[in-house]
Amino acid sequence: MPNPTAAMLVIGDEILSGRTRDANTHHLAGKLSEAGIDLREARVVGDVEEVIVAAIRALSGAYDHVFTSGGIGPTHDDITADCVAIALNVRIGVRDDARALLQAHYDRTGIVLNEARLRMARIPEGASLIENPVSAAPGFTIGNVHVLAGVPQIFEAMLLGLLPRLTGGAPLQSRSLRVERGEGDIASPLRALAETYPDLSIGSYPFNQNGVFGSNVVLRGPDAARLDDALARLTEIVGPQ
Amino acid sequence: MPNPTAAMLVIGDEILSGRTRDANTHHLAGKLSEAGIDLREARVVGDVEEVIVAAIRALSGAYDHVFTSGGIGPTHDDITADCVAIALNVRIGVRDDARALLQAHYDRTGIVLNEARLRMARIPEGASLIENPVSAAPGFTIGNVHVLAGVPQIFEAMLLGLLPRLTGGAPLQSRSLRVERGEGDIASPLRALAETYPDLSIGSYPFNQNGVFGSNVVLRGPDAARLDDALARLTEIVGPQ
Repeated sequence: MPNPTAAMLVIGDEILSGRTRDANTHHLAGKLSEAGIDLREARVVGDVEEVIVAAIRALSGAYDHVFTSGGIGPTHDDITADCVAIALNVRIGVRDDARALLQAHYDRTGIVLNEARLRMARIPEGASLIENPVSAAPGFTIGNVHVLAGVPQIFEAMLLGLLPRLTGGAPLQSRSLRVERGEGDIASPLRALAETYPDLSIGSYPFNQNGVFGSNVVLRGPDAARLDDALARLTEIVGPQ
Repeated sequence: MPNPTAAMLVIGDEILSGRTRDANTHHLAGKLSEAGIDLREARVVGDVEEVIVAAIRALSGAYDHVFTSGGIGPTHDDITADCVAIALNVRIGVRDDARALLQAHYDRTGIVLNEARLRMARIPEGASLIENPVSAAPGFTIGNVHVLAGVPQIFEAMLLGLLPRLTGGAPLQSRSLRVERGEGDIASPLRALAETYPDLSIGSYPFNQNGVFGSNVVLRGPDAARLDDALARLTEIVGPQ
């Protein structure tokens, strides 16, 4: 059975303006690789309703899972939950269990659960909550869309709780070989290797580290024996390093 | 007049697998902000022809500019140029001026311009080249699509040359000098040069080719006479090569 597929949707003007560098896509990519879910696409969009709605529709139709990051705080530009509801054509409102989570958190910390904070309890109908062990305001899953916070620490904590609920296929394994030769010199043998092992994904990633040029060749696939076999062949082909 | 709009398309399996963290989107976002161009969307896709083609079509239809990053090296998984040609429905082939740039670069460095490396001279019909002062293999602009390298150092150098063409600013010109000495030896004279020529951008890009260590020093600025002057001074400072 092929691995499930996934897309990431990062929501936030601050990423596109260059003010903040997105860290969540890279984190998600690593975690999904380990879990045997293939991240196929990532998008970053701004805080604009029609753009977010269109992206959620496109991605949730094309992939098994969509993860979103950002836009679930208390301010006026936090519109992710509403956009998900529009995209999936369901109603949205403050939900009692989400409100209770916020109330308990703010009671503990002596902060007032005002109208703005209460926005964070707006959950589309039919969603299940994703725990936020850092700051209480929950994420949620509805259909194949998983809505997570943008703050990396919270995004990561939410993902940790969510991932075991998703069905992963066989985790991808990888083998890599550091080759201290120009990419152009190994391009032709790599092409031949890719043809011999069509079931593996073979990539070449050039580096220039401390004045040493070369390439890291990475083999990926679900089958360890095939990978070992291909790595041995690769080592033979490009010579001892 | 509203600012022009732009999208970024990052191409490469290594980003989606979590192996590499994309740095180019954040860099582009900052530079476009300074230049008054609104980055509205970014996407990351894998090395899959139909996905890349669809993304280029969608983004080039929706925004004033599309920047791509990655997939223009010599290996079999470098398919960006071909995908751009398909997306824009133009022919593609090895172009003489691009080949000459590669030939000159490899002649200087004593490397053979083999068939794999020649792939980097494949340019869609009607494109204009984008200078690569680091490793010669050019990027290109066709229509509103700007095709740049994925290695951050090269992406940034290409963008530096490209941006003035898009914003109506004075186009930057460049001069470069190959210095066969360790970067640490020339760092102090380079700093002094940068202080003498504060109007120029001065970069150093280390190499190690066939056991020869050194650095390509690149000077950039709008004024040819200033550049020639600085190049003469640089040559004097670091000694004849």
